[in-house]
Amino acid sequence: MSVRLPRNVKLDPDRTGWNFYLCVRKDLRIGKGGEYLALVLQDASGQLAGRVFENVERLKDEFETGEFLRVEGRSGIHNGELQLVITSLRRVHAAQDEAQGFREEDCVPSAPRPIGDMWSELQALVAGVAEGPLRVFLHRLLADHEAALREWPAAQQIHHAYRGGLLEHVLTMARTGTALARIYGAREDVVLAGAIVHDIGKLQELAYDSGAISYTRDGNLVGHIALGLVLVRDTARGIAGFPDDLRAELEHLVLSHHGSRDRGSPVEPKSVEAFILAAVDELDARLHQVRQALQDEGADPAFTPWHKRLGRVLYRGPQDGQG
Amino acid sequence: MSVRLPRNVKLDPDRTGWNFYLCVRKDLRIGKGGEYLALVLQDASGQLAGRVFENVERLKDEFETGEFLRVEGRSGIHNGELQLVITSLRRVHAAQDEAQGFREEDCVPSAPRPIGDMWSELQALVAGVAEGPLRVFLHRLLADHEAALREWPAAQQIHHAYRGGLLEHVLTMARTGTALARIYGAREDVVLAGAIVHDIGKLQELAYDSGAISYTRDGNLVGHIALGLVLVRDTARGIAGFPDDLRAELEHLVLSHHGSRDRGSPVEPKSVEAFILAAVDELDARLHQVRQALQDEGADPAFTPWHKRLGRVLYRGPQDGQG
Amino acid sequence: MSVRLPRNVKLDPDRTGWNFYLCVRKDLRIGKGGEYLALVLQDASGQLAGRVFENVERLKDEFETGEFLRVEGRSGIHNGELQLVITSLRRVHAAQDEAQGFREEDCVPSAPRPIGDMWSELQALVAGVAEGPLRVFLHRLLADHEAALREWPAAQQIHHAYRGGLLEHVLTMARTGTALARIYGAREDVVLAGAIVHDIGKLQELAYDSGAISYTRDGNLVGHIALGLVLVRDTARGIAGFPDDLRAELEHLVLSHHGSRDRGSPVEPKSVEAFILAAVDELDARLHQVRQALQDEGADPAFTPWHKRLGRVLYRGPQDGQG
Amino acid sequence: MSVRLPRNVKLDPDRTGWNFYLCVRKDLRIGKGGEYLALVLQDASGQLAGRVFENVERLKDEFETGEFLRVEGRSGIHNGELQLVITSLRRVHAAQDEAQGFREEDCVPSAPRPIGDMWSELQALVAGVAEGPLRVFLHRLLADHEAALREWPAAQQIHHAYRGGLLEHVLTMARTGTALARIYGAREDVVLAGAIVHDIGKLQELAYDSGAISYTRDGNLVGHIALGLVLVRDTARGIAGFPDDLRAELEHLVLSHHGSRDRGSPVEPKSVEAFILAAVDELDARLHQVRQALQDEGADPAFTPWHKRLGRVLYRGPQDGQG
Amino acid sequence: MSVRLPRNVKLDPDRTGWNFYLCVRKDLRIGKGGEYLALVLQDASGQLAGRVFENVERLKDEFETGEFLRVEGRSGIHNGELQLVITSLRRVHAAQDEAQGFREEDCVPSAPRPIGDMWSELQALVAGVAEGPLRVFLHRLLADHEAALREWPAAQQIHHAYRGGLLEHVLTMARTGTALARIYGAREDVVLAGAIVHDIGKLQELAYDSGAISYTRDGNLVGHIALGLVLVRDTARGIAGFPDDLRAELEHLVLSHHGSRDRGSPVEPKSVEAFILAAVDELDARLHQVRQALQDEGADPAFTPWHKRLGRVLYRGPQDGQG
Amino acid sequence: MSVRLPRNVKLDPDRTGWNFYLCVRKDLRIGKGGEYLALVLQDASGQLAGRVFENVERLKDEFETGEFLRVEGRSGIHNGELQLVITSLRRVHAAQDEAQGFREEDCVPSAPRPIGDMWSELQALVAGVAEGPLRVFLHRLLADHEAALREWPAAQQIHHAYRGGLLEHVLTMARTGTALARIYGAREDVVLAGAIVHDIGKLQELAYDSGAISYTRDGNLVGHIALGLVLVRDTARGIAGFPDDLRAELEHLVLSHHGSRDRGSPVEPKSVEAFILAAVDELDARLHQVRQALQDEGADPAFTPWHKRLGRVLYRGPQDGQG
Repeated sequence: MSVRLPRNVKLDPDRTGWNFYLCVRKDLRIGKGGEYLALVLQDASGQLAGRVFENVERLKDEFETGEFLRVEGRSGIHNGELQLVITSLRRVHAAQDEAQGFREEDCVPSAPRPIGDMWSELQALVAGVAEGPLRVFLHRLLADHEAALREWPAAQQIHHAYRGGLLEHVLTMARTGTALARIYGAREDVVLAGAIVHDIGKLQELAYDSGAISYTRDGNLVGHIALGLVLVRDTARGIAGFPDDLRAELEHLVLSHHGSRDRGSPVEPKSVEAFILAAVDELDARLHQVRQALQDEGADPAFTPWHKRLGRVLYRGPQDGQG
Repeated sequence: MSVRLPRNVKLDPDRTGWNFYLCVRKDLRIGKGGEYLALVLQDASGQLAGRVFENVERLKDEFETGEFLRVEGRSGIHNGELQLVITSLRRVHAAQDEAQGFREEDCVPSAPRPIGDMWSELQALVAGVAEGPLRVFLHRLLADHEAALREWPAAQQIHHAYRGGLLEHVLTMARTGTALARIYGAREDVVLAGAIVHDIGKLQELAYDSGAISYTRDGNLVGHIALGLVLVRDTARGIAGFPDDLRAELEHLVLSHHGSRDRGSPVEPKSVEAFILAAVDELDARLHQVRQALQDEGADPAFTPWHKRLGRVLYRGPQDGQG
Repeated sequence: MSVRLPRNVKLDPDRTGWNFYLCVRKDLRIGKGGEYLALVLQDASGQLAGRVFENVERLKDEFETGEFLRVEGRSGIHNGELQLVITSLRRVHAAQDEAQGFREEDCVPSAPRPIGDMWSELQALVAGVAEGPLRVFLHRLLADHEAALREWPAAQQIHHAYRGGLLEHVLTMARTGTALARIYGAREDVVLAGAIVHDIGKLQELAYDSGAISYTRDGNLVGHIALGLVLVRDTARGIAGFPDDLRAELEHLVLSHHGSRDRGSPVEPKSVEAFILAAVDELDARLHQVRQALQDEGADPAFTPWHKRLGRVLYRGPQDGQG
Repeated sequence: MSVRLPRNVKLDPDRTGWNFYLCVRKDLRIGKGGEYLALVLQDASGQLAGRVFENVERLKDEFETGEFLRVEGRSGIHNGELQLVITSLRRVHAAQDEAQGFREEDCVPSAPRPIGDMWSELQALVAGVAEGPLRVFLHRLLADHEAALREWPAAQQIHHAYRGGLLEHVLTMARTGTALARIYGAREDVVLAGAIVHDIGKLQELAYDSGAISYTRDGNLVGHIALGLVLVRDTARGIAGFPDDLRAELEHLVLSHHGSRDRGSPVEPKSVEAFILAAVDELDARLHQVRQALQDEGADPAFTPWHKRLGRVLYRGPQDGQG
Repeated sequence: MSVRLPRNVKLDPDRTGWNFYLCVRKDLRIGKGGEYLALVLQDASGQLAGRVFENVERLKDEFETGEFLRVEGRSGIHNGELQLVITSLRRVHAAQDEAQGFREEDCVPSAPRPIGDMWSELQALVAGVAEGPLRVFLHRLLADHEAALREWPAAQQIHHAYRGGLLEHVLTMARTGTALARIYGAREDVVLAGAIVHDIGKLQELAYDSGAISYTRDGNLVGHIALGLVLVRDTARGIAGFPDDLRAELEHLVLSHHGSRDRGSPVEPKSVEAFILAAVDELDARLHQVRQALQDEGADPAFTPWHKRLGRVLYRGPQDGQG
Repeated sequence: MSVRLPRNVKLDPDRTGWNFYLCVRKDLRIGKGGEYLALVLQDASGQLAGRVFENVERLKDEFETGEFLRVEGRSGIHNGELQLVITSLRRVHAAQDEAQGFREEDCVPSAPRPIGDMWSELQALVAGVAEGPLRVFLHRLLADHEAALREWPAAQQIHHAYRGGLLEHVLTMARTGTALARIYGAREDVVLAGAIVHDIGKLQELAYDSGAISYTRDGNLVGHIALGLVLVRDTARGIAGFPDDLRAELEHLVLSHHGSRDRGSPVEPKSVEAFILAAVDELDARLHQVRQALQDEGADPAFTPWHKRLGRVLYRGPQDGQG
């Protein structure tokens, strides 16, 4: 039997073998030799093009986008891009394939830190909230949405676009936001709450299924800012005697967290806490992009290649250790 | 006894007499001669500065902002502005003063068309909606908010900032929006519904009390776009079996009606009906300003004076009747 | 003999046959096998790439861009795009080919509604203008430019870029503009006139020949807004006693119809009618794009794929018939 | 008899005397002491507020805005501004008052250089144009509009807003534009022609009467860019055999001279000459403002006070003579 | 003898007494009663208008702007503003007046926290820098500029525009910047250095003398960003063997700290540390404005009056203690 | 032996021969047939793709980017682009190959005018400076940087991106700037100095080696505006008694020459000379792009194809010789 192929990010041309992948795209196309299947095969390290030129008629209905596959084939270069020419494939049978080493998480890009650790840290932060109603609110929100909050990405692309990305983003903002609140004498618990609720509408804006991220109908028509508002309103209504001032302020944090109208916030920050929240949200998204860009290798050890979205090259820091 | 003064917009200097006003501002100030009261007295035609220099100690606690007053005094010019130096004032006693001609509506700026007429027309439009759930929704919304919808202004300033202004704005948009929908083959009932719901959040954004318009806490922190969304969501939830697609679309109309993110819409129009709604909203607000500006008299019969907010002079049309 | 091929929008690979086309582009290129002809073949449904690899030397001078051709060949996929590999071609001979079903209009994209109908409706609208000089002006303008006005596209691309597109655009604006004018109590005839004259300069800005649209020298150097101004001025001069106020106002409508300086209007709207005209022009252009985008098929029945120029996906409306 | 007062720019408080002025504004106002006249009195050095408190009834109809007056009175400070309290005034009678030194040009702000000199220089430049049709065109244009071209300001305010200002602006641009054209090997005569025609529409956009500058109806509705286009077109039509390419290019220079659409040019520069023309137009307008601002005295010999429109202070240059 | 007047922020009309002030402006003006002196008298709480109507001739040359004065007079309202009508004044004689309680710092607005404390904290932060050359650099910079760094404001207006304001701003940024660097795993010492150097050019951009803040020639012509660059370059040159990479990076922090070109940074952030520095600089300036605005009292306990520069009202937080 | 190939700009497919080139890029790629070398071969007329498919193993280490090569091969079309399939190559040996006509300057794009001529003209301009310290400064600056100033390009791309481009740009600005200064009565020598120093920082921002242009570390982190400032400061420091006013003004010219903050100038022009300098810099860069675009051939003799960066087509001028 053939050997297991390396992870996508490490795969070279001219390798023969097999591996487990998540199929995130499946198109039937017409080429010179008739119909073929063009697949996108994903593992935790990235994506790979797959091509099925034989037995297309039989294979094309054997699996769907969103399913895990066991794939065998040979890698090569086509039009300058790596692709896997597939000689056989079948759906993964979890029970049987786990013995050969199949694990779902190996097929899905994830946050670098274990999700369980991040979840525990977030729970601990909430447990430390002094104000009763706010602590009840946050516990309720986390309890109601635990399953999704542990899985969801923070975006379809650009930043934190992977499993656990939303939790990672929330947790970093909780840490940076409360650090700034402490220095400025602002209400730390309110900033913490803002970090937790600000993107909560993403749970309804995005659909996330086995690594595939897409926009829902409500995501397109209503958007995460307004969806988050409704989630906050509903959670607050469910708590008897929840202070209305606090409800309004949490809604303000959700609505204003993009910082200005032209970035999509229908109301702009009006409290010290809202200014801090918007600042750490923007910084975290920006630094996530910067860190990804810094991983781009290039000829120059000191600078990255030009990064189109950021509109600049990035500096990796002194190469001789000072500073 | 002295004569009744003319309406504020017609008042000249050096007139002595009395009239009924709504007091919309009351400040106690210190001048060369000690404390005095600086009032803003409103009738349906506009506002007038009032000054109380005598008996300040006694009068200053006799009435509050938001009350109707019977005021007697003499008009004059001070620092180039007309003011009424008040010799006596008291609260209106409705029962007794109606005999002398007091009517609340004479003290509050209002839409030019009678509110009852506008309300009937709107009801008739809703009665003509073919689609059952949508008609139920609109009847429910109007019924739940009838009192406020008949009174509310559409804004604190700039356009439709008077009693019944919101109803007038909604009704004009209903007419223009459905006219355009008919020509473009779009769903007229959806555009009508959009006209009715788009600014419904203003009922919670603004406080309106006897002609005085101010922002509420939720108006400042949440804003009418998000408040309208919650009103739509709650109304839809109250109707058993209300189609979720339609609920999402009504919310989209509320959220997208400013037309773009930089004008405060967190999502941008994504349907033909949403594009039409945003276009007629912008046009109606703009033309309301234009029509007000056209009332500015100036030396030139053909053009208005420079209008700062619009950034131009306006053309009144040919002076010799053609066109 | 081979069969007639389906329309371009319906053509599949691996079909052999013939059809009539308008040649809208002809390039002589050098490939591995030497010179070949790269053609763009147009019918009313769209465009198709054509390739002549044989007898190039003889065929390359047998026809020119802008001529109708009878083409025979076989469809295939090259670099992922459909093309017709041509085995024979010749110029259309109208007399003889009409017998086989040749009609010019089958080779040129056109407005969906028959041009004769649109023209009649426009004439009827003008006949209803009450004001004498304005009616004379509009009749004169339509009479002077009838041939072009019945043919011209409204743009080289983006919206109404086909035969009769300008007339379709003008007529829709006439209907929407006068509907709004009626509701706002503005002068309907002036808005109607604005709809007719606003893009009249396009007749000189664009050259339109058998479906090929290009910019003229004056189109590039002077532009349709200024060219339209000259056409209005000249037409008004030709009418004895034409009111100068009205002439200036028509010019204002032409010059201001883009709505603001940054969209290319050297003067901005200064009358109620000019504001209405600019609003319906923008809305009509926008909705034309929206409707074209809504025809893009995609995987999702509710939403279109991402539309780059509009910067969003578009909603097709509820899939279950409500609303 | 009292003495002649100094020029407005030199007038101090507490001076009694007489002088000749152009009345550029006359308002009847109501003050504590009843009606009075508020005038703006202009001489070549600037403007001065005038007040008539006595004999108002008789004097108010004795003269109109735009007339030259002989005024007698006493200067003083009111609300921190200098004003002339007028004790007597009458219309100037040219014949009789010239003996006392009345000269119209002393009452109207003018370009610093004599108009006759500037006109001669411009004529000489045109005489040097090599290309026949272009020289004929320019001679014709200057001849047709000589009277206005010798008088007109270039703007109502901001830059060159005085008698001869347009001629001064045109002449400077002719010199700078042709200097740059020579260096860049561009067609000098075309740039010269552009300098002469670019603002020719100002003759119809602005009304200029004895120093008072206002916008005409066509100025407001059509604007100088489009009005200039018509003047160029008409002049070209009047010359038999005038090359159409050249006509289009002159129109392009008029239309594109603001440099970009957002500054009001409906077409943007497309030739080397058009780029040069737009650059020298912007620079000349900017430097005119800068030079006026440099005349503002302030406490600091090296820098002017903050200039609001330019958004900066300006540097007068080294104070010790270097550089 | 009369009593000592309260601090400016507490002064009422109709109070007679004396106090010590810094004279920050002195103008000789002409009023109805002849010349008078218009002063601006400053204490630590704010500024007060002073007027000298008597003995002007003698007093006007007895003192200059920038000197401390002992002033006696009576407060009153003029044109709605408080002013002190001065009956006598003289220069402060430090030796003698200290006995009566004169202290310079009572006449100059200062940072709320004692400067000595802030300076010690900054020194301690620098002492904790691990990297040798960077620590030497920072010690050198602080030593070279200690006197100014302890005094300077951070701006002429808008934020931190008082004695010690620059030090306060630097110290807050040092704390927020290093807190964020720690969370993001960035180089804390580099961010600390960035906080210290980023505005160092303000020492040459602004002149600060006894509370009066003005722009220097180099401030106007070169600006604090470029001046800071030169200070960094010179300091680095003075340290033998200073790593050139580190020198370039410190310069980058100075140049990029405004975050983008349109805010005046000639290069934009290119390292994680530079992004953090720009974010905390913007946030600190913004929050300083917010906190000042929150001190504006108004009728509403929950919201401030409209703040023009921030373009919004601000929320003071829940009034009932939750959150 | 084979013949010498024509210059890159004239090369056709299917030509066999040899020539000298500068290798400005060398990549090892993997294709269907294994490894190959993809080169970019440059001569003075432009760049050419080169491919080595044989003897890759041996040849790949025989030369480096930045070396001059003697290359032999056959030209062909691949994917629509011209490339040279290389049959042999070796490093140039200057001594031996000069006999065959090798000249470095034939392999490097250069300014059209000989560098020696430009340098002499610049020296003559400096010799004409009247003011002693300024003349000394400029002589010193040119002497210190002569080698680089004779070679450097003005940019990596867009305009003057070739050998001697900076000198060409400086010289043109010296001519246009002093011409304008003369007309406006500004200090010509200061403008001349501004032209010489404004981009002097490019010598450190860009690395230029045998035709290859790249950004240095200081170019990325500090940028040419700030680097130029340091060069000016250092040069001024080296001249005893150099006037500090003049030093500040030269720095101002460097810092403000982009004209506004959003184009990267940290301070904006504040003197007449700085306004002139910014204007001629922008115009020269723009016209350089325009002239390059005008060289694009296309089907239309009057207009260029669409130029993406300029956002327009360009007009070549009348085709019949008028104007």
